[in-house]
Parts: sequence; C-alpha cells; structure tokens
Amino acid sequence: MSTLAQLQTPCLLLDEIRMERNIVRLRDRLSRLGVRLRPHLKTPKCVEVARRVMDTPAGPATVSTLKEAEEFARHGVRDMLYAVGIAPNKLDRVASLRATGINLSVIVDSVEAARAVIATARATSDAIPVLIEIDSDGHRSGVEPKQTELLAEIGRLLHQGGATLMGVMTHAGGSYGCRGAAALEAAAERERAAAVACATVLREAGLPCPVVSVGSTPTAHFARDLTGVTEVRAGVFVFFDLFMAGLGVCELDDLALSVLATVISHRRDKGWIIVDAGWMAMSRDRSTAKQPVDQGYGLVCEAEGRPYTDVVLTDTNQEHGIMAVRSGSSRELPDLAIGDLVRVLPNHACATAAQYDRYHVIPKGSGVVSTTWTRFGGW
Amino acid sequence: MSTLAQLQTPCLLLDEIRMERNIVRLRDRLSRLGVRLRPHLKTPKCVEVARRVMDTPAGPATVSTLKEAEEFARHGVRDMLYAVGIAPNKLDRVASLRATGINLSVIVDSVEAARAVIATARATSDAIPVLIEIDSDGHRSGVEPKQTELLAEIGRLLHQGGATLMGVMTHAGGSYGCRGAAALEAAAERERAAAVACATVLREAGLPCPVVSVGSTPTAHFARDLTGVTEVRAGVFVFFDLFMAGLGVCELDDLALSVLATVISHRRDKGWIIVDAGWMAMSRDRSTAKQPVDQGYGLVCEAEGRPYTDVVLTDTNQEHGIMAVRSGSSRELPDLAIGDLVRVLPNHACATAAQYDRYHVIPKGSGVVSTTWTRFGGW
Repeated sequence: MSTLAQLQTPCLLLDEIRMERNIVRLRDRLSRLGVRLRPHLKTPKCVEVARRVMDTPAGPATVSTLKEAEEFARHGVRDMLYAVGIAPNKLDRVASLRATGINLSVIVDSVEAARAVIATARATSDAIPVLIEIDSDGHRSGVEPKQTELLAEIGRLLHQGGATLMGVMTHAGGSYGCRGAAALEAAAERERAAAVACATVLREAGLPCPVVSVGSTPTAHFARDLTGVTEVRAGVFVFFDLFMAGLGVCELDDLALSVLATVISHRRDKGWIIVDAGWMAMSRDRSTAKQPVDQGYGLVCEAEGRPYTDVVLTDTNQEHGIMAVRSGSSRELPDLAIGDLVRVLPNHACATAAQYDRYHVIPKGSGVVSTTWTRFGGW
Repeated sequence: MSTLAQLQTPCLLLDEIRMERNIVRLRDRLSRLGVRLRPHLKTPKCVEVARRVMDTPAGPATVSTLKEAEEFARHGVRDMLYAVGIAPNKLDRVASLRATGINLSVIVDSVEAARAVIATARATSDAIPVLIEIDSDGHRSGVEPKQTELLAEIGRLLHQGGATLMGVMTHAGGSYGCRGAAALEAAAERERAAAVACATVLREAGLPCPVVSVGSTPTAHFARDLTGVTEVRAGVFVFFDLFMAGLGVCELDDLALSVLATVISHRRDKGWIIVDAGWMAMSRDRSTAKQPVDQGYGLVCEAEGRPYTDVVLTDTNQEHGIMAVRSGSSRELPDLAIGDLVRVLPNHACATAAQYDRYHVIPKGSGVVSTTWTRFGGW
C-alpha cells in the first residue's frame, strides 16, 4: 500500500472500481443481446486485467500482435483470435503457438494470404482456424460484402485447402467518426448486417461459417440487435478515454486510466503550469482534436480524480506538459504549488497505456494504491 | 547475422553508417565553434548509441528522466545533467544516485524549486550542482532573461544555501517552428544571447557561473557563433527524422532510423496497400503535419531503404498502416505482394524509437542486420 504522494511521476493509475463497472456494463449488455464477448486485449496488455474481462481464464480473447498471443498463452489463455491480417512471415510463430495446444485463429482478406495459411497448415498438418475479414465501412482492410465471388473463392480455398474455415469477422472502425446515438446505432447495424450477409454468402456456397464476429467499443455499446452475430470484440471499453466520452459512449467518471503528474514550473505571465507529464507520458495521441471538444493532450484533474473545469494539457514536449485553461473559457488555473500532484485523463487509453510497463491500481477510487500490475509491449 | 526477411515485423532498424556520419557532422561543427557536446540521451535511450555519441564512456551527457540517469549510471556514465525542472518528489532519487558517486546535476526555474534542492543538499550534506533554466524563446519553462532580479535571487539562494551553482541552461525549442536557414541562425543566436546575458547577470551579482549550456538539434546545426557558451546539448541529431529533414537540418538520406513493415492487404479500389506498421509501430507523432510537406505517419521506402516517391502512411490504426500516394501526386503505388517488406521513415525519431525495446543494427547500410541493441523506456 502506498499513497499517491509516494509514487514517482509520471505514472499510470488504474481505478479498479471504474474498470469493473465498465466490464459489467458491457457484459450485461451483450448478455441481453445474446452474444458472447471476445474481449480485445490490445488495450490492457496485462494478465490481471485480461482475467477480469474474459469469460474464463482460458478465454476467449482477441489480440493484435503475436507477442500478446504468446504472453497471454504463457498465462493460461488458450482461445485467441489474432485480429490483424496475417503476414506470411508470421505463420511460423502461429504454428509454434498452435503446436503447444493454443487455439489461435488468424484472419485473411485475400487469396494470396489464404494460400500462405494453407501452405503452413499443410506443412504442419494443422488445420489452422481462419476467419475472413470483412470491410463493413471502408475504413481499412477486408473483403467488401459486394465482393461475393471473392469471398466464396477465399472460403473454398481455405475449406478445401486444409485450413478450418471458421467464418467471418469485421471491425466497424468507422464508428469512431460518428456523431450521436442514432449514427452509432446505424454503424452497429451496418457492421452486423455486413457480417451476417457475408456469412450467408459462405453458407449458400456450401461452406461452413460457425463464427460471425463483429465489434468495436462504440458499436458494442450502441447495437440494438445482434441477430446472426455469435461474438463481439471490443477493447478500449475496459478503461474508456476522452475520445469515447466525446463520442458519447461513456461519461467522464467512467474513465479508469489516468496519468499522475507533478507540477514542476509556473509561467504565470503565460497562464501556464508545467507538469512532468509530456507526450512520452500521455502519448502523441490527439484523437479528440477531431471532436467538438478538443481535450488537448489530456484533461487535468485534482490528484484525487475530480476534473478541473476547462483545464487541459494544451501542449507537450517529451517530458513537459503545459497545463492551461482551454481556449475560450473564462475559468482560471487552479492554485498549485511546485511539487503538487494532478491527474491527467488521456485521449486514447490504448496509446497512453502503451507508454508504461505497469499499472498502479487504486482499489477503491481512493488515493491509496494497492498494487502494481505489469503490462507489456512490443511485437 | 540475419537478413531483413528473417526479422519479425514491425521492428526498428538503425543504419549505423548514417548514425556515425550524423555524429561526426555535429562533433566537427561544435569543435570548430569551440564548445563541448553534452549529447541528450533521451533520443536513443541505449548504451551502445550513448557510447558512440559521448566524448568518453563516462560522459558528459544529458538525460530527460531519472530512469535514464540510473540506467546510464549502471553502464559507467558519471557526468549527467537531468534537463527537466526538478520535482521535489524526485530529489530522493537524485540524492541516491549522487551518493554512489554519479555527478548528476539538476535544473530549477523558481525560488520554490531552489528551496527544495537546498533542503535536500543540506539533509544529505551534498552540494548538489544546479543550473538555472532560462526561457530563451517563450516555448515552455524557465526564467526569462528580463527577470534579472529573480535570476539573481535564485542564484544567491542556491549559492548561499548549500547547493553548487553551476550556471545557466536553455533549450531553444521554439527553433522547431522556424522556416529557413536565416530563421534558424537567428534562433541559435537568440538562444546563445539569452544564456550569455543571464550568465552575465549572475556574475555581476558576484555569483559563480562556470557553465553556459544551450542546445537543440536545429540551433546546434545553424549557430554561427557560440561565444560565451561552454556546452551544447542536442539529441535527435544522432538519428534525425522527417521533421528535421522538413526543417532543412538534414537530408532524407541522413535518416538513420526506420521501421520495417510487411504488406498484409491490398485495397486496390481505394489506392491503398495495408502494412503491419500502425501507430503502435510509428507512434502517434504527426509533427510534419505543420510543415510544408506533410509526411503522414511516415515516408515509405523500399526494403533496402530508397524512398518511393510520394508514398506515405496516410493513416494508421493500432497495428495497421495505410500506405497511399500523397494527395496531389500523380505517382502510382509500387507493385507489392502480400508479404513484401517496406521501410517507413518516422516523423519524429524520439517518439518512434520509444515504441521499441531494441534496435536492429544495419552495419553497412545493407540488408544484413548485425546485432540488436537494447533500449529502455519508462521513468
């Protein structure tokens, strides 16, 4: 047990109560909609968080790197979907993990990638499970739902070539650009409809498609109906962040992650307080710059967690954060002395957490830190 | 020895020949100007790079975190300046390091911070060396040169209070916003003049000021005269990056760092190739967005390092990079297959390198990687 004042700044605080509330909220929601959660562990990259968010200690789970798959496998997670288009040069690592009994599935969106998977499946006599990635909103990779011939061709190739065709998956990343509940509901329905339509294409071609996997934090929270979907993937919901609050997916007091920082300088002439949390501590993520309320490099709170009104990190250097009143506000900066602590809520939990190798866990939302949980990075 | 094709992507490549050329270039320049280099190790955070850039294995060097000071101390670096305003809650760690014989100096820009340093100096009977931080261009912390009374007050407090007043230091971070050689030369002269003027204030107050420390990569490369300056600090010059190239401080073929990535998907309808280097691999840094040539999340090159014309990462997700022809260009995307490798030059070397725990070193600019050098992060 230590108090916030005993921590070295900058460091990453995790409010366990808020995290658990966020997890319960999505679990309850998906349970009512009748689908399973396959949480995306790319956000926490931490075994202790993974265990709290997964159905069982063995999964299911989603990962964004093979490093995550390997680390979580070492800690007992056995059912994982690697949800980034598989590169041929990563198939050896996939095969090695699978050879240890880990049920790791991969995704493809092309004939070329399907051929590479099949070659490994044959070489290792292992029917690697594969999902076909669908592009439901044009934001990055995937087969488009209208490319029905290509979809069936990839499906047949996998099914007949020695892989296990598991089904289809899509991620409505475009939902991050939505405004308002109606737009988010529509994005969720577009995501569902695209995945289900593609599953139908496969099934009508006589191919198996037991899995219909969709998900993003915004669509998972706004979907009204998930008929035909078997699982939902979401990651950032476990912590939430200013971007998700700006999108209307959560409230500010749902944000479970913050950066603890110390005041190191005053520039009263400029209306600045300088803290020791720069972009290395916050990440360079400025996602909220595209939203109606730009939160700078982060929204500043009292050490105990209550946000100051209109005080943000307006700019950062590597190890310096410039705290100032938001442009257009008539508020004043809080009266803080050199050495005083503040907390800063991040734009994007995945990016900010990635700057740290541990979480300092606050068990009851109080100023006492109970323990640290390790997180990892890399590939 | 391994070839690029044997590496797991994304990974960080370091061209040793370019790095050494960058080091020689700045060393020669400062030698002609008659000042010592105190390299900023916040960019590499790597012992092997540190040894190549420092005068001696013991230093001198500059650091941006106490973690850097502790790590480099473990590897024999003994003369370090911690160039971020000292927070009172970090003085115990400073004292512990100094108690092991490390000559670590700190900076202050206020009476409050000076008092905190003095309290520790007295409590530990150790005359901690301190520089007063000067604000030479209004970009973040520091005493302004016109605040001559405050400057002398802080100086007297330190000198009489049990610390060792070493002098003044400033960082012309504003130079990052300059356009053209004349503006950069003027920024360098402003930086020098501010530091020297403040040194004069201290000396005229009867106080010691043996050190006059200035520096930033742009001003270090454009200063025409450094009369009165005793040392220059610079960090990113060791690797350079797209931002520095855009500023005119280096050429593209001076960039020593790049990210190796693999093609994972094609979206020919959209004019996209998708690679496995997203913002986690490149960082969220978009510094060049403010420059005349916006390089997106990075400039894409052939695997062997030659840049494609007008091909950049126009957008990224966590583990996806979208490669496309720069807006307004009539060029076409290169013909790449799933599994092909590319290299991506980063906006900002400090931010991109921070996403990795090692450098893969290319000793002769060739496609063969000789060894890996560990880098660290954290605080």
